[in-house]
This record gives sequence, C-alpha cells and structure tokens, in this order.
Amino acid sequence: MGEVQPADPHFETRVRSSFEKQGIMATIGACLVKVVPGEVETEFPYALSLSQHNGYIHAGVLTTVVDSACGYAAYTLMPAEFDVLSIEYKVNFMSPAVGERFRGVGRVVKAGRTITVCAGDMIAVADGKEKVVATMLATMIAVKTKPA
Amino acid sequence: MGEVQPADPHFETRVRSSFEKQGIMATIGACLVKVVPGEVETEFPYALSLSQHNGYIHAGVLTTVVDSACGYAAYTLMPAEFDVLSIEYKVNFMSPAVGERFRGVGRVVKAGRTITVCAGDMIAVADGKEKVVATMLATMIAVKTKPA
Amino acid sequence: MGEVQPADPHFETRVRSSFEKQGIMATIGACLVKVVPGEVETEFPYALSLSQHNGYIHAGVLTTVVDSACGYAAYTLMPAEFDVLSIEYKVNFMSPAVGERFRGVGRVVKAGRTITVCAGDMIAVADGKEKVVATMLATMIAVKTKPA
Amino acid sequence: MGEVQPADPHFETRVRSSFEKQGIMATIGACLVKVVPGEVETEFPYALSLSQHNGYIHAGVLTTVVDSACGYAAYTLMPAEFDVLSIEYKVNFMSPAVGERFRGVGRVVKAGRTITVCAGDMIAVADGKEKVVATMLATMIAVKTKPA
Repeated sequence: MGEVQPADPHFETRVRSSFEKQGIMATIGACLVKVVPGEVETEFPYALSLSQHNGYIHAGVLTTVVDSACGYAAYTLMPAEFDVLSIEYKVNFMSPAVGERFRGVGRVVKAGRTITVCAGDMIAVADGKEKVVATMLATMIAVKTKPA
Repeated sequence: MGEVQPADPHFETRVRSSFEKQGIMATIGACLVKVVPGEVETEFPYALSLSQHNGYIHAGVLTTVVDSACGYAAYTLMPAEFDVLSIEYKVNFMSPAVGERFRGVGRVVKAGRTITVCAGDMIAVADGKEKVVATMLATMIAVKTKPA
Repeated sequence: MGEVQPADPHFETRVRSSFEKQGIMATIGACLVKVVPGEVETEFPYALSLSQHNGYIHAGVLTTVVDSACGYAAYTLMPAEFDVLSIEYKVNFMSPAVGERFRGVGRVVKAGRTITVCAGDMIAVADGKEKVVATMLATMIAVKTKPA
Repeated sequence: MGEVQPADPHFETRVRSSFEKQGIMATIGACLVKVVPGEVETEFPYALSLSQHNGYIHAGVLTTVVDSACGYAAYTLMPAEFDVLSIEYKVNFMSPAVGERFRGVGRVVKAGRTITVCAGDMIAVADGKEKVVATMLATMIAVKTKPA
C-alpha cells in the first residue's frame, strides 16, 4: 500500500509516541522497525519470560505484538484527532514460535472512515531463516480523542 | 459442564504443572484460581507494565490470559498422554480493560478426540464490580506427546 | 437480555419487514420464529438444495441463517433511523448438520452506539432432539440510513 | 503456491466430483473456474434470490462460496483417502457486494497433515472492474473417509 496518502503528515511521530506509552512493549522488549503509510513492523527477541509450557513464545505474546503492528498500521492512515482501538481479531497459529527474533508485520487491507481491516503476520527468525508462524485478520476502529 | 468426566483423574496436577512452566504467566503475575473438568479460571492484578497507550491492559495481555484459561479447560478433558495447543482464536474487545484485577474464564463448548472448541471471557474487577471486557471463541488441538 | 429496552418500540415490525426483503431467506425457506429485544430466532427445514457434498447442510447456509439471527438481534436495539450491517463474524462447526430442521439463535452480547457484539448458535433438530452444531461470534455496525 | 506437489495426481477430478455433489452450489449457480494445487476459484452471477435486505448479495452467500473455494484448495493437497471439513472460519466484509458476478478465491496458507490454514477473497466484478468485498481466514481438517 505504498501509494496510500496518510491523512496526517506527522503519522510516524504519532505512532512512535503512542508505541512508547505501551508498557507491555517494554515488558516484551519490542521495538518499532518500520512505520510507513499502511504498514508497521515490530520486533522482539526471544525470552523465557515470554514462553508457554514448551519454551516456545506464548501464542498471546505473538498476538500482542502483531495486534500492535496492525493497530499502528491502521493508525498511520487516520487523521490526527483520532485514536485507534482493536475491536476484534482472529489469529491462526501455524507452527511453534521457535527462533531468536520475532517480527510482527501489520498491513491495512481496507481503510474506512470508521472501520479499518488489517492483516498481520508473525515471522520467526531462526538461524537467519524466516518462517511465518502465525497470521492475523483484525478489525480496528477510529475513535475521536477527547480534548484534554 | 460439571457432569463431564475427565479422561485422566490427575487432570488438575497436569494443568498446574504445565501452567507453572509458562514463563509469561509469571511475567503477567497470573495465577490459577479454578481448575475443574471443562473449566479453568486465571487471574492477574493490574500493572502498568501490561498496559497499552491509554494505560488500560493491552488487548494482547487479555488474550494471553484467556487463551491459557481456554487451553487448560480443554486440557482438563484430554487423556494423560496428550498436550494441548491453540490452533486459532478470535477475540472481541467490548470495553476498555479498567480495573484492579482481571479474571480469565475458559470453558469447553465441545470436546472432541482431536479438536476441542472453547469459549472464554475476560472479566475486569473494579471497586468490587465485575464487567466482561472481552470474549473469546477458540479452537484447541490434542497432540500426542513424544516420549522423553 | 429480557431487561433490555429497545430504542424503537416498533422494532419487531422493522425486523420482520427487513427479513422479508432478504431474497436468500426465501431461497433457504427460513422464517422468523422469535423477535424480542436483543434476541432473534430463525428456522428452516432440511433441503438437498442446501447441502454440501455429504448431504449435510452446507456450513455457509448455517452461517447465513445464524448471521441473520445475530444481525436482527442487534437491529432490535437500534434506533429507527439506523440499518444494521455485518462487519465480520467467526463460526466454529462442531458437528455435521444432520436433522429435519435447523434453528439459528442470535443474541446481543454487548450493544454499543456504533458497534454491537452478538453470539449465535445453530441448533439441529433431529427426531425431536436438539444439538448445537455451530456457534458464531459476530460484530455488527449501526449505519445511519439515507433519506429516500 | 504453484510449486506445491499434490499428494494425489487426480486431485482435480476429486475436487470437481465433490463440488458437483454440493446442492447449494447449484442453488447459488456457482461453478468452478480454477483448480490448481493449493488454489481454487469459484464464480456465480448476481441473483435477487441470493440477496440481503438492500438487494446486495447476502454475507452468508459470499461466505458459502469462499468457504467452498478454501475447502477445495485444501482438498487439492490431501491424499486420496481423505475428505475435507471446515472446522471454523472468520470473514470480514469490507464493501457492499454489488456487481454482476462474484468470484471466490481460496488459497492454502499452510498445509499440514491434519490441519490446513486457508485464506480467501470474494471479488465483485462490476462493469469489468474487480473489487475485493470480503476476506476469509479459515481452518480446514483432513478426515479419513470410511470405506463404503
């Protein structure tokens, strides 16, 4: 979606500022690696503190990171006076999340005035090889922010 | 599903032992508060380290905890030589996750030999009042464990 | 949700009038069997013209009928000048749809000004016995109708 | 997924034979337009008998056709002695289904021995222009067929 025109030229600043306010991203150790109109990528390293019972990354952690990527992808296209919220999402887990690093990619599929549909992938990086381990289909909503 | 007969009488020990191996549960501060055949509850207190950008609990954290509740609810009914994995889930977020404590409730809707369907709710407890803030519909699979 | 107050006292007339305009409902042979605030039921008889390759009712037909039940359940609580549209839904199929009649039940889980979350079940009736064969979690949106 | 090797060289015959047994496909007027390993397309013309209350194609009809495309896409990669069933799916509806023809495209995202994840799109064709009006993420299961 490289041809998409963001409604707010300062979209990247808005995304980065919001991302830094998410306590869970620091807990996970996730950082933003790409912020362009309609697409956002986040990344985090493996940690045992994020694992399920077999030592793989917990499905919910993958979900957290790819949800943020999808939400911020939607946010890049929203006017400045709006906030983004996840209405709902569905995730399929296709392979155990084994790897050194994990990258969540969120892309806008359809941007509307109120509702934005996003698709996301969670990619595990192990020994330099990439593998899609989970895929998300999400519905985001633009909510007008209240004046402070 | 109180009338359900678990295949393994030691289901509670299995669930508690597996739960303790999930690094993410310690990170979230979640503990098991109910383990009966076909139903599991988990609970965690509010922490800023689990927040999204408005200070509410991040959707992905709610998902992590209710996914575990659903997965372990399915696990209570599985034979001893099986492990449980989340194939996929869908979550709707209905209200901001505001509260002092959050309780994830997972229930088996349909237990099959291979596939188990579960429903879950995430309940926020604020000032002693309970509110369902998210609801999940999940598909779990029983996978035969490999001999050590 | 018997305690729910509909915004429009003429909700039942609105639902029945809209239902009759759905060509697919006549094709399926579905009729409305219950319309109360926050809950709607629809029913149709078995027909080979609705089958998948094993002769069971096709998953998509179950989905069509329970989607309508959910959509109209949401519609019962909306003000008169709004229309209802399905944003998205997820359905789990738990047993083959075998039976003489099939009943779709849609219930409002959370009614909001813009977004309404609904849950639905598809019940197969065979030899007088009822069985839930599919379950839905759906997101509906209220859209202001344009003046004619 | 053009490089995918089907387990059964007669996959197309199996898909076409199964498709013809689906009574609902004749009712909708849908036909198979593409059957290759890991991808299937189906198409049907607009009919008022498939409409919702505004005259657009009903969400459930779109779902039925794209579910079949996804299911048969999974089926192309399964060994001869297996049948395919939809465990669950999620669909997002992005635009009203307006057009003369509608094409459902189903693709395998991840093929496993038991579970296959598929993605699908429903494309509306109006005045020669194509538009994706709905998108699906689905989970299929391979079930061993019983000897007759």
